[in-house]
Amino acid sequence: MALVVQKYGGSSVETAERIKRVAERIVETRKAGNDVVVAVSAMGDTTDDLLDLASQVAPVPPAREMDMLLTSGERISMSLLAMAIHALGAEARSYTGSQAGVITTSAHGKARIIDVTPGRIREALDQGAIAIVAGFQGVSQDSKEITTLGRGGTDTTAVALAAALNADVCEIYTDVDGVFSADPRIVPDAKHLEQITYEEMLEMAACGAKVLHLRSVEYARRNGMPIRVRSSFNNKPGTLVTGSMEDLAVEQALITGVAHDRSEAKITVTGVPDHPGVAARIFRVVADAELDIDMVVQNVSRAVSGRTDITFTLPRTGGPVAVAALDKAKPEIGFESVAYDEHVGKVSLIGAGMRSHPGVTATFCEALAKVGVNIEIISTSEIRISVICRDTQLDDAVRALHEAFDLGGDEEAVVYAGTGR
Amino acid sequence: MALVVQKYGGSSVETAERIKRVAERIVETRKAGNDVVVAVSAMGDTTDDLLDLASQVAPVPPAREMDMLLTSGERISMSLLAMAIHALGAEARSYTGSQAGVITTSAHGKARIIDVTPGRIREALDQGAIAIVAGFQGVSQDSKEITTLGRGGTDTTAVALAAALNADVCEIYTDVDGVFSADPRIVPDAKHLEQITYEEMLEMAACGAKVLHLRSVEYARRNGMPIRVRSSFNNKPGTLVTGSMEDLAVEQALITGVAHDRSEAKITVTGVPDHPGVAARIFRVVADAELDIDMVVQNVSRAVSGRTDITFTLPRTGGPVAVAALDKAKPEIGFESVAYDEHVGKVSLIGAGMRSHPGVTATFCEALAKVGVNIEIISTSEIRISVICRDTQLDDAVRALHEAFDLGGDEEAVVYAGTGR
Repeated sequence: MALVVQKYGGSSVETAERIKRVAERIVETRKAGNDVVVAVSAMGDTTDDLLDLASQVAPVPPAREMDMLLTSGERISMSLLAMAIHALGAEARSYTGSQAGVITTSAHGKARIIDVTPGRIREALDQGAIAIVAGFQGVSQDSKEITTLGRGGTDTTAVALAAALNADVCEIYTDVDGVFSADPRIVPDAKHLEQITYEEMLEMAACGAKVLHLRSVEYARRNGMPIRVRSSFNNKPGTLVTGSMEDLAVEQALITGVAHDRSEAKITVTGVPDHPGVAARIFRVVADAELDIDMVVQNVSRAVSGRTDITFTLPRTGGPVAVAALDKAKPEIGFESVAYDEHVGKVSLIGAGMRSHPGVTATFCEALAKVGVNIEIISTSEIRISVICRDTQLDDAVRALHEAFDLGGDEEAVVYAGTGR
Repeated sequence: MALVVQKYGGSSVETAERIKRVAERIVETRKAGNDVVVAVSAMGDTTDDLLDLASQVAPVPPAREMDMLLTSGERISMSLLAMAIHALGAEARSYTGSQAGVITTSAHGKARIIDVTPGRIREALDQGAIAIVAGFQGVSQDSKEITTLGRGGTDTTAVALAAALNADVCEIYTDVDGVFSADPRIVPDAKHLEQITYEEMLEMAACGAKVLHLRSVEYARRNGMPIRVRSSFNNKPGTLVTGSMEDLAVEQALITGVAHDRSEAKITVTGVPDHPGVAARIFRVVADAELDIDMVVQNVSRAVSGRTDITFTLPRTGGPVAVAALDKAKPEIGFESVAYDEHVGKVSLIGAGMRSHPGVTATFCEALAKVGVNIEIISTSEIRISVICRDTQLDDAVRALHEAFDLGGDEEAVVYAGTGR
């Protein structure tokens, strides 16, 4: 008997009808002879509705109360899912994050899982029941307060439960058939990937592929837990995320796929005094505003003035805050000006095989040049090349790279409506 | 510094706007120098919406999951209320029933409070915060499962918290100005009562006065906790429920008030074999269907046939179930037929003073006879007389009794729209 952990996101349980469909799939898995544990998100729009209510009663609600409010969303979906399973004749019990032993840090709204002590879940399984666990939430280790995990939290709940229970596999159900060599909405012949390493999946997720959340992949890699990304609308096997680059066969493909991201903005700080520590002060200003910087370039210093320019990218949602914070710090740091640009896109090529193939960067740049895409920033890792370009040229860039590295599949990918969360 | 426990029902927190108004009242109480603990129900229609969702996914949802589902309602209202208080500059923290230490039996949907261990609530008060507690819910002592207390649960939560915290008073906020000598919608000159004993309030509640729930009054009496019933729409002092009949002054009023109830139905079982144990079997059938019987009469046995008739009343919602259960048991018990009548009303006269005044029953019956009301069943306790009559005559009966015992006040009572929960 295998132990399977399944995750269903908000769109999979958006309505009573969809909850019943998910219940059927869970009962099938159980009837096939598996123990089943399910992590579930709040129903479709619940979180937005609750946020709207909060904004009506308080301009800046305390984070503790916001977590208390939002966790009611999974409480609703998980109990309804347990009822729907019960109606199909199987036994199911729902558990809050706290009851399931999901122990976190105390950072409300962005807590991290420290430990999982799933005693009650094991007990439910031992008694033949299916365990339904609220995703996205836990209880803080020190103060026993209810916490939420932030974006992508339910993916992480599922992987953490799977690791703690020593499950055979963690299945993440979404609205696409798995991971593709590029977004099928941009590249019609994007190839479906049967398997991908944790490292590649991490780079794909970090570069804008929305199918899995970064933190859940990190957690799975650290614990060696295989993830299967599947569609909740069909029975295709999806994509298996597992194994390290070291395990890869020599004849594996050079490149895995092309990822893109439209959510970043670019900030250029000009006339920065070229002394040690000045760049650090700029990044400290941004960090103090609780914003994450992605890519960074510093131009060669202008010898005459002793000044330089620093350009970086960050999530577009944080752009105005970053600009305001920098403007405020201008007199103290002594730079000349801040330029803000949100008409940028980021395209990335990911592949474990590129480590041993020095020609990849050249082919990459040639392919973009050929379709007239100008590279504004470039950054590379051992298994990734990313560039910032104009957002209007992003689709062209994705297609050009996909073709230049011959990533296409034989059949057209099927594209579903809706988001992957 | 006093410790005040306040209870707000679903209609008081129905919208974001009302939540803000309740928050203002709580902050005022705090600013007046009191420690404040609040028990709150789910917002207006939340419970009905959740029940509707449940009925869409499962015909007979398991009680454990139903409790998990319904308790999300208070989680939403309590966190929003804490946010609204925070927005007014005071500190507030919300706690689930489990976090507040509300320990119950494990009967899902109708759990009873066994103990309250409000360690976290005391801690919040010690730190100067207002504590908001989810009404209607707790955690079972043995299995640590989430439970709900059934109808009127939040009143009971408030009283139980007040008792455990040794509060100075428990204020129950509702949409009327307190307890009246009769329903002001039927008797325009119904008198507002400044004070009433626990015993009288119990009889009033048991006889249909909806202002306080029976169980909460029982709990308050057992613990000697004064309850103040007040309107959340004005600053009138309301009605104080406190003290036993023994404490009453000799010159107190004979009669406290008239209560009425339209929620019962009458069942008559005819041709019942007049042997010991047959009546018990009939009531066992009804009890096994989880229905509570209120009033009972058994006619004098017809000597010829050795058979008798048994008539009883019960909540109208349980009528069809009771009739079906009795019909099924007919061959086994051997009675002749079951008659069901839901066009009945119940009117009751309550007053601690009637114990020592033997003429009350006579005056009662004369008053009803004078307005043509026929008494179908009569039942009395030490401080109450109740009769069943035609439902169409109920208002006349209430007015006739109110006048016969001279219960009227000097000014007309103000009637608000809405329900008392």
